[in-house]
Formats: sequence, structure tokens, C-alpha cells
Amino acid sequence: MQLNLNADMGESFGPWVMGSDEALLGIIDSANLACGLHAGDPMVMRRAVGAARDAGVSIGAHPGFADLNGFGRRPMHLPEEELEALVHYQVGALAAMGQAAGWPIRHVKPHGAMNNMACADRAMADVLARAVARLDPSLILLAPAESALAQAGAAAGLRVALEVFADRSYESDGQLSPRSQPGAVLHSPEAARDHVLSMVEAGGLVTREGEVIATPFHSICVHGDGPGAVETARLVRQALLAAGHELLPLDRIGL
Amino acid sequence: MQLNLNADMGESFGPWVMGSDEALLGIIDSANLACGLHAGDPMVMRRAVGAARDAGVSIGAHPGFADLNGFGRRPMHLPEEELEALVHYQVGALAAMGQAAGWPIRHVKPHGAMNNMACADRAMADVLARAVARLDPSLILLAPAESALAQAGAAAGLRVALEVFADRSYESDGQLSPRSQPGAVLHSPEAARDHVLSMVEAGGLVTREGEVIATPFHSICVHGDGPGAVETARLVRQALLAAGHELLPLDRIGL
Amino acid sequence: MQLNLNADMGESFGPWVMGSDEALLGIIDSANLACGLHAGDPMVMRRAVGAARDAGVSIGAHPGFADLNGFGRRPMHLPEEELEALVHYQVGALAAMGQAAGWPIRHVKPHGAMNNMACADRAMADVLARAVARLDPSLILLAPAESALAQAGAAAGLRVALEVFADRSYESDGQLSPRSQPGAVLHSPEAARDHVLSMVEAGGLVTREGEVIATPFHSICVHGDGPGAVETARLVRQALLAAGHELLPLDRIGL
Amino acid sequence: MQLNLNADMGESFGPWVMGSDEALLGIIDSANLACGLHAGDPMVMRRAVGAARDAGVSIGAHPGFADLNGFGRRPMHLPEEELEALVHYQVGALAAMGQAAGWPIRHVKPHGAMNNMACADRAMADVLARAVARLDPSLILLAPAESALAQAGAAAGLRVALEVFADRSYESDGQLSPRSQPGAVLHSPEAARDHVLSMVEAGGLVTREGEVIATPFHSICVHGDGPGAVETARLVRQALLAAGHELLPLDRIGL
Repeated sequence: MQLNLNADMGESFGPWVMGSDEALLGIIDSANLACGLHAGDPMVMRRAVGAARDAGVSIGAHPGFADLNGFGRRPMHLPEEELEALVHYQVGALAAMGQAAGWPIRHVKPHGAMNNMACADRAMADVLARAVARLDPSLILLAPAESALAQAGAAAGLRVALEVFADRSYESDGQLSPRSQPGAVLHSPEAARDHVLSMVEAGGLVTREGEVIATPFHSICVHGDGPGAVETARLVRQALLAAGHELLPLDRIGL
Repeated sequence: MQLNLNADMGESFGPWVMGSDEALLGIIDSANLACGLHAGDPMVMRRAVGAARDAGVSIGAHPGFADLNGFGRRPMHLPEEELEALVHYQVGALAAMGQAAGWPIRHVKPHGAMNNMACADRAMADVLARAVARLDPSLILLAPAESALAQAGAAAGLRVALEVFADRSYESDGQLSPRSQPGAVLHSPEAARDHVLSMVEAGGLVTREGEVIATPFHSICVHGDGPGAVETARLVRQALLAAGHELLPLDRIGL
Repeated sequence: MQLNLNADMGESFGPWVMGSDEALLGIIDSANLACGLHAGDPMVMRRAVGAARDAGVSIGAHPGFADLNGFGRRPMHLPEEELEALVHYQVGALAAMGQAAGWPIRHVKPHGAMNNMACADRAMADVLARAVARLDPSLILLAPAESALAQAGAAAGLRVALEVFADRSYESDGQLSPRSQPGAVLHSPEAARDHVLSMVEAGGLVTREGEVIATPFHSICVHGDGPGAVETARLVRQALLAAGHELLPLDRIGL
Repeated sequence: MQLNLNADMGESFGPWVMGSDEALLGIIDSANLACGLHAGDPMVMRRAVGAARDAGVSIGAHPGFADLNGFGRRPMHLPEEELEALVHYQVGALAAMGQAAGWPIRHVKPHGAMNNMACADRAMADVLARAVARLDPSLILLAPAESALAQAGAAAGLRVALEVFADRSYESDGQLSPRSQPGAVLHSPEAARDHVLSMVEAGGLVTREGEVIATPFHSICVHGDGPGAVETARLVRQALLAAGHELLPLDRIGL
């Protein structure tokens, strides 16, 4: 099976470092790069693009709300026009970095509250997906399996890469278990690895109760910050390769 | 003679309005649009792009230092890499807006302190010009006549549109008279118009002493804020048309 | 009757001017000064404090959400601790400006979404009111009549100045008519003046249907931006003086 | 001898962590807290104030240029009025946090480029020192020994605590060795400790050549970020205590 590992990168800002970008680049296949409004700044973006290119990791824009202090995690209810402007601004800024570096962006994945809201709100998801399609219809939309965002991407004519989360459990409706629930977050690298393997084998999301919600998926989201994150990513990679799967950048996966 | 009128636009931010964009759009041929770091925000940019398109005014990126509070007017000494990243980020963000609106950007003109410094510092000018050329060699660089920035643009292989200022006098070395000098700024719309006509007729910059510094130029920079600015722009337009000159967007002028 | 006219001031930022501060200073008795997070910057604040002092206009802090691009008008749901930190930060910053200028701040009035949310949410209002009381219990809280914020101020032991709005009509529950309603905003200066006079004479809020909701109030909120705003403020002042009322800074009104 | 260890703290921002504040609090006597313009945000400041109070570490304001992306390290040439406004804004904001927490600020130490520039520029130093004195003449100014800033503090009537740097060598004119010089930065904790001891024993600055520039000093600046920083701080503390010196908060040292 062709699969992909993706992670957020380039989330530093000025003198503040976030994540383990260098370590991740040896593990993941595709990186979602912050675009300056919730994290990242032009220099951080430039370095992340160059490092991803040198590592052969494909890149995508990770646009978020313009809320640096809140890291784009605070919900904001914006007019459609402003949402579209935020997408075009951020995707365009990163696309230019990629173009200048000879390493064009291949996908878009909304960040934080923008992503969460669009996964549950089809109208908002449509705005985001159409904004991407209007800018560049060849861009892949990276969206959670079973989300309104994924549906919106398909409706907008985009290729959609569906993702599952290595370290999060699912509810029976296909949504992520709320973090307040016991077992919502798989803290041990081994548990996350086993969760991924079980989803790959089952061909769908595996809920906290062990139910399977059948769905195709193409990418597994891992992390670069927090204790154990890089180790989780490494274990997931090793396990998938050992099980005979092929790990590829998003633009080389059949979608 | 083919000429162009350019002005800065899209310099509002959030609830704060700057300039008279609507009035200018009926007068100028090309607009330099702020890109979010010294002025402008994604919504302001989006609206400015759409309004320029509807008015048939060509657009260009007006990148500046990331200093909103100081409006990009405070000198900042940045590493070359960071300068290039600032150019790519801002030009890319606006280019995406233009692309999505069906009204692609045609030129780049640095803003404020970034422009002033590059006019006097060839090494910095080279960084800016090469950054533009690396991103998109078809972009026109709009730079003051007789400036290091103009030279750098030519050296980088860019088409360079040379500009003169409607309301500023020149010193005998071809530089703008410092604002502290009497007569450095032509406050009356009629004086500015006459200054432009005399430069067009003389085929060069006209200094405070009435000397002529022969130089080709293609564009005249006017303003949209301050008392009399729009009136100046209007008078300059009328006078140039009355004198038989043709006023065109930057991308339609022979460079 | 002792009354007060208050207005927001110091809402410029960097090169962007907002409002008609100079004109207002000859009309109002107390100014609510932005504190740098939704509007204002240290220089704008400094100038506003000095100008208010020179005009004998008492000043208060006008803290808002840290959302410059959205002008503090976008709702943000923050933890209690963060709300308190926002109040202390902003009130403290302006208080220092006032102290250094020999013109101490006398009141606090939350801005925009922070104010609106606290008027309807008693728990949030308690956080704000207690934050003020903890910092300086001698500060007056300026809050809309009939609001949860006013109740919270009293419960926190603060002196509370109740305000009504010159240009806004009320619903029968004492809340402002939503702007979407016809008649919610009184656009003509004369209508606003008459609305104020009718509330003063009736001793309470006057609803769109002409009902009276009896409530004491001490201050009338006027504006300095928008067409007719300064004229409204002027008419209100003249009418109140002509009717024999006394207009005083907030700290000289009996509360 | 009565001495003090000071370090910068509270330099996180939103989700970005900087430094080892918790570890430092068990070692230092006084903390310089960022005030939101070059680092820190209201929540970060609130937590840092509370943690310092709980650890018995005295606090001071660490105002800097309003340049978050550049961390206040980029020189900015500002009008005197604006410099003063920056000081009042930031010191006032932190002072309010301290007051509300029952842990008042005791000192002010400018940050980064603002500090560096004021150490070499007496006119600028005078502006900063007078701004502090105008706000609260009981505040201590923490300034490098042999600096224009220290002289300005004394001239403004402030108590001045003179500091030396644990990990930096000096030139024969009493200024810090430029970082480009070999030996300018003492990277090993042991070397830094020995440097401090030699300065304490010599009663002055010790230059790279081993010269002594006699000067009183009261505080030793240590760091909380970078490899070995906390270990350096710990070694310096142990060595000073072992040598019989008394380590005290700035407000309890005789100045």
C-alpha cells in the first residue's frame, strides 16, 4: 500500500524555536509549513523550504488564522471573503518561497482552529477548498478522513489526500475523540504505532471501542514537538516499511 | 511619448483607512500595493486588487520591512537571506491575490526605507533585484531614475521602469532633495504639474537650480494621501494628455 | 443633574489616524484611551494623555482583546487568567503614561467585543471587574446601564458609572437594539440629541417603542468617528447645558 | 560582599517557550521580565511574576524595542518622546502585574539593542533614565558598570545597580569584547565562574589581557538559555557563597 507520513514544520518564529524539524526531515515524506500568520516568519519559511528540498520531503502550505499569540488555535468567525483572502495570502507567500527554491509546494492543509472548524462546517470547508482550487487546481488538499473538509475538497475538484492521526483515537462517528476523554491521545510511541498499523490493516479508522469505520486514507499525521513525538514518527515509519508498505511524498501517491 | 502614472495603494490596515484609493484609480495607470508587513492586510489587498482590476489599473507588489507600527519607514539592516525572504514572501502573497482575481501582478517596487536604502546601496539593491528575478523574471522593477536600485534591476536582467517624482525636487547628483531643504517638496498641485512637464520636455531630472540631468524615465510617481495629492495627480494626468503623451499601464509601456 | 460625556480616543496606530480626537477634546468630559492591543501604540497613547490633560478631560483605560487587525471587535473566548492579565497589562500601561504626565487615569471601560461579551456574561464581567479592583480599587468602572458588567462592578466594590448611548436605541429588555434592526442607530445628530434629552428627562432608557426603563445613569457615550459624530457630540453637550445640567469629568461626578 | 545574580526571564511568547525560567528561579536573586513588545505576552508576564514571587526572586521590567520578530535586537533610532513612551508603556504594564500579584517591581533594565545603544550613547541613556525617574524614582536602574547608561541613571537621581557579565570578557576601555573576537564569550561554565570570581576579587572588570579596570559592581548577569547557561549560573552562585559573599535581591543590596 502507498502511504505518506506528514507533519507540521516551520513553526518557529523569530528567536523562538518550535518542534524538531531537522529530526523530522529524516522521517516524514511531506511537511506542512506555517505561513507567517499563526507561526513562521519569512526567514523561518525560507529555511524550512530549503531543508525540506534538501531532504526530498515534499512541502505544502499550512495556512491558519492571523493570531500569532494564540498560535491560530482560537476559533475566529470570519466572512467568506476574508477566509479566502487568508488562504490566498498564505499559500501565495509560501508558494513563492518554494518556487524560488526550486521546490514547488504540492499541497495545502489548514492549521489549528481553521482546520478544526472546517472539518465540522461544510460551508466553511467549501470556502477554503474553493480558495485553493481558484489559486491552483493542481494543489492537493490534505484533509482528515471522514471530514467536511475532505468532502469540500472533492466537490471543488481538488485531489484530496485523506489523513489519519497516529496518536489520536476516534469516536464512532468518525470524529477525533475529544482530548478530555480518557484514551483520546495515545501518549506512548508504541501505542501510536500499533494504532496506525491496526488502521492500515483494517482499512479504516479504529475507534476507542475497537470498531472499524471503513475509509480510504493516504497519509498519517505525526508530530515533531512534545515528548516522544519524534520517536513515535520513527516507529510508525519503521513499522510501515517493515509491513511492506511504500512511503512516498504526497505528490507521488496515487490519489 | 509613452508614460505611466504610478501611486501607492492598499495601505489601509484593519479598520484604519489610508489614502484615497478610489479617487486614484480613476487617474493612475499602475498601483503599488502594500503586502501586509508594513501596511495592508489580506482583506485590504484583496479589495485593492479587485478594484484595480475593475479600473484597468495594472498592479505591482510594494514590499517593505516588517514594521507595521513604523510603516516600513524605519531603516533596518538585515542579512541578505532575510531581505530575499521578505521579498519572496510579500511578492508571492500579492501575486496569489492577483492570480486568483484574474489580474496578475506586473511589477515590484520596494517601499519606504527598503526602497530608500536600496537606492543608495548597490549591494542591497542587488539582493532585492535578484530576489525578484529569481521569483519571476517577467516582473518589471519600478525604480527611481539614477538610482542604484535601477542599476541593480538591469544587472539582474529585469525590465526596469524608471520613475520620477511629481512633487519632489532633485539635487545636482540626481538624488531627491532632502525634505529639510526649502523647495524639496512641491506642495502646490500646479507646481508639481509644471515640474513634471519640465522634466518630460527636458528629457531628464530637473534640479532645484534648474539644471537638467538627462535620463530616460517611464513613470511618474504621484500620491493619494495628504492635502492636494489627488488634485496633483489629476493635474499631471490632464497636462500630459493635453501635451499629446500617451498614458499606459507599466506592462504596456516599451521598456 | 450631574452628567458626563465620554468618548473613545487614542485609537490611531502608527501612521493611521482614527477619529477626531482634537475636536472631541473641546466637547467631552472623559476619554476612554486605547491601550495598544486593539488600537493605540505607546506614542499615540502618550499624545492622547497629554492632550486630554491640557484640555482638562479625565482619562480612563479602554482595554480590549489583543487583535489589532480586527480592532478588538472579534469575540475571543479566553481563560479567566488571561482576561485578567489583559486587563492588568493594558490598564497598567496607560496608568504609567498618566502618572508620568501628571494626569492619572480615573476609570476603566472595556472595548469592543470584550465589553459586549461582558455585558451579557456575568461570569466574564466578574473577572474583568475583579481584575480592575485588584489593581486599583479607586478606579471607576464605566459600564452600560442595565448590564452584567455594571452589576459585576458593584459586586467587586468598584464605583460604577452607568452609561447610555447617544445614538443607539434600546430594546424592551434594556439591551441595545441590534444594528440590523431599523432605527437601531440614530444617524442624525438632532435625533441623537433628542434621544439623550428624552432619556435624561425620563430618568431611564427609552426603547424603540418609546417605553421607559427606569435606571440611573451618569454618562453619555458619544463618538468621534463617522460622519456627524462630532456634530452629535456637540449638540448633545449644548442641549444638556441649555437644559441646566452640569457636565463633569467622571471622577467629579457623585457615584 | 553583598552581591546579586540577575537574569532575563519571561521571554516566552504564546506557545513558544524560551529559557529555563523554573530552573533559574532556584538560582538567581532578581529577574528581568520582558514586557510584551520584544518578548513576553500578558499571560507569560503574569506567570513569570507569580513564579518569581513564589521563589522570593525580586523582579524588574526589561523593556525593549517593539520588534517581536527581531526580539528587540535590531537597532532602532527613535525620537526621544517615543523612547520615553516605550519605557512608560512597558514598565507600567509589568508594574501593574506586580502590584496585582503583591510583588512590586523593583528595578528596570533595558533589553537588547535598546540597552546596547544606551550603553554607548549618553543622550539616549539620559532619555531612558529620566523616563524611569519620572515614572517612579524609587526604581533601581540595573546597568552595566562603566556604561553611559549607568552614568545617566545616577544623573537622573536613580539608584543604580552596576552589573558585570559572567560569560563575557571585556576590552581595555571597559566595554564588552565584540562577539567576533576570540575569547569574547566564555562558553564553559567553569571559565565563567572563574571570571566572576576574579572580578569579585579584583574589584573591577577583568579584560581579555588580564588587566583590571577598578569599578564597583553589585550584580552579575547570568543566562537561562543556551547550553550550559543554567549550569553556569549554578556554579557562579555556589562559588560566591563558598567565598563568603551574600547574595540578595536588588532591593536589599546597599546601593
